Amino acid sequence: MKKGKVAFFVTGNVHKYFEARNVLSEFNIGTAMLNIEAVEIQDDNIKKIAIASALDASRKCGLPVFVEDAGLFINALNGFPGPYSNYVYRSIGTKGILKLMEKIDQRDAYFHSVIAFCNPDERTEPLCFEGRVDGQITYEERGEQGFGFDPIFEPEAERSKTFAQISTDEKNKYSHRAQALRKFAAWYALHI
Amino acid sequence: MKKGKVAFFVTGNVHKYFEARNVLSEFNIGTAMLNIEAVEIQDDNIKKIAIASALDASRKCGLPVFVEDAGLFINALNGFPGPYSNYVYRSIGTKGILKLMEKIDQRDAYFHSVIAFCNPDERTEPLCFEGRVDGQITYEERGEQGFGFDPIFEPEAERSKTFAQISTDEKNKYSHRAQALRKFAAWYALHI
Repeated sequence: MKKGKVAFFVTGNVHKYFEARNVLSEFNIGTAMLNIEAVEIQDDNIKKIAIASALDASRKCGLPVFVEDAGLFINALNGFPGPYSNYVYRSIGTKGILKLMEKIDQRDAYFHSVIAFCNPDERTEPLCFEGRVDGQITYEERGEQGFGFDPIFEPEAERSKTFAQISTDEKNKYSHRAQALRKFAAWYALHI
Repeated sequence: MKKGKVAFFVTGNVHKYFEARNVLSEFNIGTAMLNIEAVEIQDDNIKKIAIASALDASRKCGLPVFVEDAGLFINALNGFPGPYSNYVYRSIGTKGILKLMEKIDQRDAYFHSVIAFCNPDERTEPLCFEGRVDGQITYEERGEQGFGFDPIFEPEAERSKTFAQISTDEKNKYSHRAQALRKFAAWYALHI
């Protein structure tokens, strides 16, 4: 690894941190976890949420940082739980989503991830990198791996497995977050 | 009305504005609607959301302003939809809540309202005023008045009517928002 090539990831979620560390290491970039409180705004658009967080976090710590925001968007539920996936997971959980989806045949959904990078030295808008995985909401929970809504989401690339039934390494090959992380890492390796 | 006694309400919701105008007029206070964009953070605690919005709005416009944040908290759903009631209403709606509550006997819930007032001239934390109405989630929608989750919420004070089956005047007698508004108005009339 080239000396000193490190990216600062603002997150309090160790699962996300490990995913990021794995992907960025492919580009010889080290990942430092910055567990600081960055503002998280309410907005239907997760890109706007990520941009506001990156601006706030980089201003607070004076470092170039990246943040990641993601959500599960279920088309039959008008995008719900979307930007509030974390809260919805903590309150009604996967069982709540399955209940809302009872008797609904249209089960397509997608995970969307946005990474926003902000350098406090530059007076420009944060840069964004996005990833998306399309799939289906299952009729029951399956699998123990991953976190959040992984046990009820079957990505298109897997014929019959949920995100919680595949290993982190496997998920990191193509997950929404891995896609966004790879785009970010490729840019970071060249420009920082 | 004493000349010049006006309070600035930051909101984009005309229903809320009319509720506020009616209640504040009882205290001889005029209400001006300020439709400016104030930051709305993500937090499980609506008091924190209101405080952040009031600080941001008063800083942006240089005026003493108040904001209001409210939510419907359903105990059997761990407080869901709570601080994200607006988004949940727009995505899965009252029908989504009724579906989540199918086969659940414990139907107690409450509407909680917080008003935060911030004066940009004073370097103090915003002041908060709160109101709460306890009630039950109905088994079906009833009524056409009000807005949001009013058709599925039966307040304790009404034996068999939802918030959407009573007039705005009736609701203003004791609603969560009216309670918070009255506490705020009583303070404002004395101190501003």
